[in-house]
Amino acid sequence: MKHYISIQDIDSLPNLVKEARDLKANAKAYKHLGEDKTICLLFFNNSLRTRLSTQKAAMNLGLEVMVMNFGSEGWALEYGDGTVMDQGTSEHIKEAAQVVSQFCDIVAIRAFASLNDKENDEAELVLNGFKKYTTIPVVNMESSVGHPLQALADAITIAEQNTKPKPKVVLSWAPHPKALPHAVANSFAEMMLKQDAEFVITHPVGYELNPKITKGAKIEYDQNKALKDADFVYVKNWSSYNDYGKVVNQDKNWMMTKEKLGTAKFMHCLPVRRNVVVEDAVLDSDQSLVIEQANNRTYSAQIVLKKILENLH
Amino acid sequence: MKHYISIQDIDSLPNLVKEARDLKANAKAYKHLGEDKTICLLFFNNSLRTRLSTQKAAMNLGLEVMVMNFGSEGWALEYGDGTVMDQGTSEHIKEAAQVVSQFCDIVAIRAFASLNDKENDEAELVLNGFKKYTTIPVVNMESSVGHPLQALADAITIAEQNTKPKPKVVLSWAPHPKALPHAVANSFAEMMLKQDAEFVITHPVGYELNPKITKGAKIEYDQNKALKDADFVYVKNWSSYNDYGKVVNQDKNWMMTKEKLGTAKFMHCLPVRRNVVVEDAVLDSDQSLVIEQANNRTYSAQIVLKKILENLH
Amino acid sequence: MKHYISIQDIDSLPNLVKEARDLKANAKAYKHLGEDKTICLLFFNNSLRTRLSTQKAAMNLGLEVMVMNFGSEGWALEYGDGTVMDQGTSEHIKEAAQVVSQFCDIVAIRAFASLNDKENDEAELVLNGFKKYTTIPVVNMESSVGHPLQALADAITIAEQNTKPKPKVVLSWAPHPKALPHAVANSFAEMMLKQDAEFVITHPVGYELNPKITKGAKIEYDQNKALKDADFVYVKNWSSYNDYGKVVNQDKNWMMTKEKLGTAKFMHCLPVRRNVVVEDAVLDSDQSLVIEQANNRTYSAQIVLKKILENLH
Repeated sequence: MKHYISIQDIDSLPNLVKEARDLKANAKAYKHLGEDKTICLLFFNNSLRTRLSTQKAAMNLGLEVMVMNFGSEGWALEYGDGTVMDQGTSEHIKEAAQVVSQFCDIVAIRAFASLNDKENDEAELVLNGFKKYTTIPVVNMESSVGHPLQALADAITIAEQNTKPKPKVVLSWAPHPKALPHAVANSFAEMMLKQDAEFVITHPVGYELNPKITKGAKIEYDQNKALKDADFVYVKNWSSYNDYGKVVNQDKNWMMTKEKLGTAKFMHCLPVRRNVVVEDAVLDSDQSLVIEQANNRTYSAQIVLKKILENLH
Repeated sequence: MKHYISIQDIDSLPNLVKEARDLKANAKAYKHLGEDKTICLLFFNNSLRTRLSTQKAAMNLGLEVMVMNFGSEGWALEYGDGTVMDQGTSEHIKEAAQVVSQFCDIVAIRAFASLNDKENDEAELVLNGFKKYTTIPVVNMESSVGHPLQALADAITIAEQNTKPKPKVVLSWAPHPKALPHAVANSFAEMMLKQDAEFVITHPVGYELNPKITKGAKIEYDQNKALKDADFVYVKNWSSYNDYGKVVNQDKNWMMTKEKLGTAKFMHCLPVRRNVVVEDAVLDSDQSLVIEQANNRTYSAQIVLKKILENLH
Repeated sequence: MKHYISIQDIDSLPNLVKEARDLKANAKAYKHLGEDKTICLLFFNNSLRTRLSTQKAAMNLGLEVMVMNFGSEGWALEYGDGTVMDQGTSEHIKEAAQVVSQFCDIVAIRAFASLNDKENDEAELVLNGFKKYTTIPVVNMESSVGHPLQALADAITIAEQNTKPKPKVVLSWAPHPKALPHAVANSFAEMMLKQDAEFVITHPVGYELNPKITKGAKIEYDQNKALKDADFVYVKNWSSYNDYGKVVNQDKNWMMTKEKLGTAKFMHCLPVRRNVVVEDAVLDSDQSLVIEQANNRTYSAQIVLKKILENLH
């Protein structure tokens, strides 16, 4: 593996999941692999799980870790070609990416969608800027368009819990007071479309995801129908993709409840707003997999870093 | 030792102080103990000494360290049970605490008193929230109510300097332009009440500490009487406990001076406002123990982490 | 080497450059040297290259690293003697410097010029405050007056690229929308004055640097004349020194262009504003050394830390 930008960088999802589970059983077995190598984690946005799990994964592999909050600790970056930089930006991505490449062997980047400029968000200015100008592997710690470390952790979690040859997995939109990005939903959908599963996406009219990403998935606007006989229900809010970044509907009836969930397992990437996205009764029940999903973030990051390190050697 | 939340988590203070002094003499002797284990330091407030000394202590024990400024780098936490989280908070302490437990073996937390809600402060929402929902040991790096790592460092310092079977130790309130928490004074009092010493607290009327904490200590409102024949004088400002969080008096006569101090040793947890809390002549004299108190912060943290690690093995 | 405060702390620049180049060829050869020792990097200002390269250099030497954003994570420092600290500052440099000395073996500090108080800036309150009160070696990661780690990296870069016994090196002022400090230009000039080179400084009238620093350098107000037959052109903006901290001229004709540069190598410390300080065509050409200068930041920091560590042993 050269970079890990999206789910599409995975050759065989079942193989990678299997290797991640082996790693989880023996997390320190490859501590020599990162010896004398350094990873730099660059955060353009806040983070709890990604910050700690990626650091932990890197340390498990013996990597030295440098963490930087690029927004508050570094310089405002320019992405445009040919710009006369006499305004707010102090450093061009061309220099920043090449410079970071001098100091580390792998760079991981978190840069959320702005949600106010669809074209720029889809161009993934930050992530693709680093990928274009760096000479080292780039790992996506959630970009405008995807969160493939989360989706891989979700795949590991489903593999651990699944008992059926072809489980039914539902991605169900939930209400939220703020406009949220599509990254988690996108990568989850992409990942599910690489799985042997019956995959259904359900959301109110107006919350259709990018059709290029969901192509091949079943879209069902009736949440009850979608949830019927589900084995895994992944709940997540996202803002409108068509009316880009807008909250077009906050229908509270879409909140996940114990009753709607039935006997399915509940999944969410966290952080989650209790009693808005999902009721307490679900999160506090044995059906919730959210803590194990978080735990698997370490092993999704670790298997990705292991593959990248092996490719470097 | 399972957690280190308050001075009450210490079985035998004299034994722990003795072990800390042995560790100080040989700080790297237990570097194997933390091998392949990780501590997470979560800061909800600023810190200099605690930040550096706790990291240093952890590294002395071979622990991997992850430092996180939770307020600026993470998500706003919700503490209420059953809350409909449609306002400013993004993540519930239930999830945050469980999630952090997936990525480290010990968590240390700094979360100051708000000083505007006595009930919430005394409930120690952050620290107790983590303690309640985490599955790993929790260390208090200063909470609303206590600063037991500081008090343990103070006990080490007194033990190093003391020449008498029963020294006289005075905790003397000092003026300050801002309202400060009670944590340091509380833990110092709790610690002194476990020591073989003549312990006196002196402050103006209106600055009585929580009587549950100072029960057994002598309260003397006349500073001069209190300071008479003192061996150690611990100076500290705190705001009113009864008129919660208020500055009811800034009487400059309570500033510690060389004259008042006599031949006693001077102690303060730092940071200290010179010529407000204490005059330069005291801090710049040989009688000041403040730098050695700061130095002992490493060994108070290290002995606590050592005890916790030994309990984990 | 005891401290590294300015270029004047270097005994023999050619020897140090040679040793740094040897280290670059074998960066991990001295990993035992920093074993069980700790460096603290204190940032009072933003940083990208310095933050990452100094960490990397320290890790290459086996040092434990603690990074702290002093401004946002610590306490506001007081520098005045005898101050009654009843205003905005919470901790005196006397205590802060001594306290930091308890927790690490080397301290590195970044504290930019204010540009609004020449006397205070030249007194280097932060850096000299730490140097005065600390008991451990101090490294300058850019202060009000100098950036000697950058200048040493520049010396390494010139040594790597130079083919002449006495190259012509030009320091050329460039326009910039904001008022910038003199630190980089000062240290570059000091460093060049220790080199066997023809050194010329060119800038518009009003941008004279501190004459005490540039004493011995040729000043040429005509940029074209200055650039004639140059081998290396170091471009940098700085604000007025005489009309302290003011932008007295933003003449766009001073921007470096491919045409002006001729066959010389282009140097800049970064971050650089494209098409304001220098045009794209220069930065994107083979004549630009800026990325290699950044790379050499690791080895300039590493040779300095190596010298300091050897002096500690």
